[in-house]
This record gives sequence, C-alpha cells and structure tokens, in this order.
Amino acid sequence: MNDGPVTSRLLAVDVGNSRVKFGMFDLASIVDGLPELVDSLAAAPDGPMPWEEIRGWLGESDSFPPHGIVAGSNPLVRDVVAEDWPSGWPAPRVLTDSSCLDLDVQLDHPDQVGIDRLLNAVAVRRLAAAQRAAIIVDSGTATTVDLVDATGGFGGGAILPGFGLLAQSLHRYTALLPLVTLEQLGVGPPPVIGQDTTTAIKSGLFFGQLGAVRELVREMSGSVGGGQVDLFLTGGGGPLLATALAEARFVPHLGLCGLAEVARSAVRGDSP
Amino acid sequence: MNDGPVTSRLLAVDVGNSRVKFGMFDLASIVDGLPELVDSLAAAPDGPMPWEEIRGWLGESDSFPPHGIVAGSNPLVRDVVAEDWPSGWPAPRVLTDSSCLDLDVQLDHPDQVGIDRLLNAVAVRRLAAAQRAAIIVDSGTATTVDLVDATGGFGGGAILPGFGLLAQSLHRYTALLPLVTLEQLGVGPPPVIGQDTTTAIKSGLFFGQLGAVRELVREMSGSVGGGQVDLFLTGGGGPLLATALAEARFVPHLGLCGLAEVARSAVRGDSP
Repeated sequence: MNDGPVTSRLLAVDVGNSRVKFGMFDLASIVDGLPELVDSLAAAPDGPMPWEEIRGWLGESDSFPPHGIVAGSNPLVRDVVAEDWPSGWPAPRVLTDSSCLDLDVQLDHPDQVGIDRLLNAVAVRRLAAAQRAAIIVDSGTATTVDLVDATGGFGGGAILPGFGLLAQSLHRYTALLPLVTLEQLGVGPPPVIGQDTTTAIKSGLFFGQLGAVRELVREMSGSVGGGQVDLFLTGGGGPLLATALAEARFVPHLGLCGLAEVARSAVRGDSP
Repeated sequence: MNDGPVTSRLLAVDVGNSRVKFGMFDLASIVDGLPELVDSLAAAPDGPMPWEEIRGWLGESDSFPPHGIVAGSNPLVRDVVAEDWPSGWPAPRVLTDSSCLDLDVQLDHPDQVGIDRLLNAVAVRRLAAAQRAAIIVDSGTATTVDLVDATGGFGGGAILPGFGLLAQSLHRYTALLPLVTLEQLGVGPPPVIGQDTTTAIKSGLFFGQLGAVRELVREMSGSVGGGQVDLFLTGGGGPLLATALAEARFVPHLGLCGLAEVARSAVRGDSP
C-alpha cells in the first residue's frame, strides 16, 4: 500500500517529565528497521510549544500537513499539546495506555504501566533479533530498565532516578552538598575517587547510575534462563552510559520511534 | 592512665541531614576494637532533642555527667545541639573539620571533606587489618563510598543519594510515580522484574543502590593495585545492603564510633 505524500509525514510527540520531544518522521521510509526520523527537537514542559519551528521543518511541503501522534508519561502536558495542535493539521491520535498498542503486556494491570516504557518496547521489537529477549535501558528523568521477552512480550522491569534527579536530590535534601549539573558531569567516566565534594559527587552519579544499570541488567538476564539478551540504551543519559557499556546498542529517541511504529502500523492497516 | 568513672562516660552526637544520632559510650571499655557503645537513639533534626531520655540512660550514674563530643554534616543543627547541651554537664567538644582529627587526609582541601566521612575512617582504622586498604560504604541520606589506604590515610571517594533520596526524588519530580517508603522496600531483595509501578520502583531502589555500591567498590579496589581490600558497611541502609553483600562487614553507628575514638584518644593523651 502506498499512502502518498499526504500521509507519509508524521509528527510524533513524546511528553516526558523534563522534556517534550517532537520527532518528524517519514513513514514511507524505513531506516534500520524503524520509520525514518527526519528531524527532532525538545521543549520544556512548562513553556510554549515550538510550533513555529515545526512549521519550519515542513518548509515547502507545508501543503501536506503531518499526521500527529502524541503520548507520554506526563498526562496533563500531553493533553495541553493535543489541545494546542496547529489548526489546519489533522487532529493527533493520543495514546493513553497499553490498549492503544499492539503489544503483549504480560502484567496483571497493563493499563497502569507508563506508556513511555511500552513505546520503547514497541520500537525494540523491530530492532531485536528474532526469538531473543531484550533489555531496554531508558536513562531520562527516571531511568527505566525493562524486559522484552523472546516472544516480544513486555515483562515489566525497574524504575530508578536518572542522572538529573540523582544530582538534584543530593543538593536539595542535604545541608552542604552542591548541585552538579550534567554539563559538569562531562562526556566520559570521571575519576572514581573524588578528591573534593564536587568530584566525589561526579563519581557517585556516573558509577552509581552505571552500576545500577549493570546490576539490573545482570539480574534480569539471569531471570530469563541465561540465554543471550540484546541490550538497548536510550534517553538523555544514554550517550554517557554508552561510554562504559560496550555491549549496549544506543538508539536515540526510542520512544518517538515507538510512536512512529504505532502510526506506521495503523497506516498499513495492522491491528489494533 | 585510669581516668575513673567520671570521665569514662561519653555522649557522642552525630548530626546528619535526616537524623541526629546520640550514642552513650564507655570509654574505659573496648569491644571489638572500638569504645563500647552502651546505648543509642536518634531524633529528627527539626524536633526537640531527647535530653530527658538521655538523662534516663545515665540513671544512677547521674552524679557522673558524661563528657560530650559533637560533629555532623548539618552544621546549623550541630550548633543548636551544642548550645542546648544540658546545663551541669561539661560543655561538649565540637569537631568542625579534619584539623580536629588525627587522620592523614590525602586531599588538597582536607577541611572541605564532610566530617562524617572522616569519622567513619577514624573508626575503620581501628577495625581494618593492618597494612590493608579499606572501603567504607555509609548508606544514609547520602550514600558515601570512601577509600582508606593501606597506611590508614583518607583518600577521598564518591557521594550519591541513599535509599530515601532515591525514593523521594522519583515521586517529587515526576507526574505519576508514587512514593515508596523504606518500610515498603522491606528487609531483603525484591523481585528484579517489577510487575507494577510500585514493585518496579522497589527493584530500581534496591538493585540500583546495590549496583551503585558494587560498581564503586570494584572501581576503587582496582585503583589501589588489586590488593585485598576490607569492605565496611554502615548507615540506615546498611542492613538492607548487607543482605546482598556477603563480603562486607556491617558496623552500626560507625560515625558515632569515630567520635568516641577521637574522644578516647584525647583522654589517653594521644595527638592531636
């Protein structure tokens, strides 16, 4: 089925707790297993949405307004984004829970899992080797570590603070500890033995998050019977973690890719 | 030198960010390398100090008021404790920085290290095997992981959030995540794959803190040339971590013991 230029352009919006991520996709084009991400940008959840920039992306194809799809772990802001959707564009599809997804969520209450974690799983199913379990590490505001089993089902996982929350909480809830920003943390492993308070915090943040992820991946890998497991890494903290996790594949914007995959399936007429 | 009953009773106060810890020691008695901790209790830093309970400890020995020693990572509350010291008791000694300690702090700015970390090192020097490096994990409001080298010098380390901060930050800075209390976390490892949001957070908190500690201990051990390293564990999160760290020795109230060791050295006339 060829759906033509009108429907091949998709604006996917992933509304997180710290950032609202916009991704422009070309659904007619598959790159490395997933719909092609043409461009992306992020905005703060409490600021104005960057609609003008997005119109700029469209450029000369402005006569072909994009389809839209919206989801996220921050429902209030998600609904604001959907309500503020540019007039003249088709109203976006809003995904609220697992019932919107073609995903086998193997939990008692599938509607209660964060949609961001499920969308990561939808994308990873297109990337992982067939019949092999995958673990997804999404290092954002929260860091999630989730298992997708060998049949492609979502099995659940773990939630812990990401780099930013770790740094903020140390500063806010203690009398003397300074705030260490992600910029200060840098782009690679810091010395493990900090010689002053700031370098000690850098060590704790980096090796703490890395060790947390390694422990969870090791334990989860053990729980699926010792078979080989593919490890995927995404989120704002992903590039930093990737410097020490050689076995992981870093995929930027995995949640946006999951949204695009849901939209692509709908265009092709796949269930649901 | 025998200093008699008047001076053998010590009240040590370790003023942390979440708790003020009081320890009554008998300096004339050594148990397992450190002054004997007779009793201890904790109070909230923003509430009244439990002076009546402490008077109760003294009981019939009330005619021998205790010597006092005070330090902590929360300087404002530390000074309140010293000012509110019961009248009739000798004024407490207040330790403010490393210059008060007989400890080789191998850092450029030894006065800027949290005194709580240094007091742990003072205590561990009495416990660690001679000529062997030690790593101290103190899992409190913040979790600190510090190196004491084979000569007994403090080498620095890492600072990261403890269990309580991890849980609080997830809840406070996200739209949907609930607060998981330490009571809910329980007394042993939770399932690694959480089937709902609360159990996913339990997994993230437990395996996250455990993995952080393991990673830091592994990296620090490697940095001291691969020799054997003694691992010590203390703090409110210590008992929970100990369930998965068989190689660690758990010592309750290590900071209080460090304070008592400083007081014991002064009574014996050791430097400084």
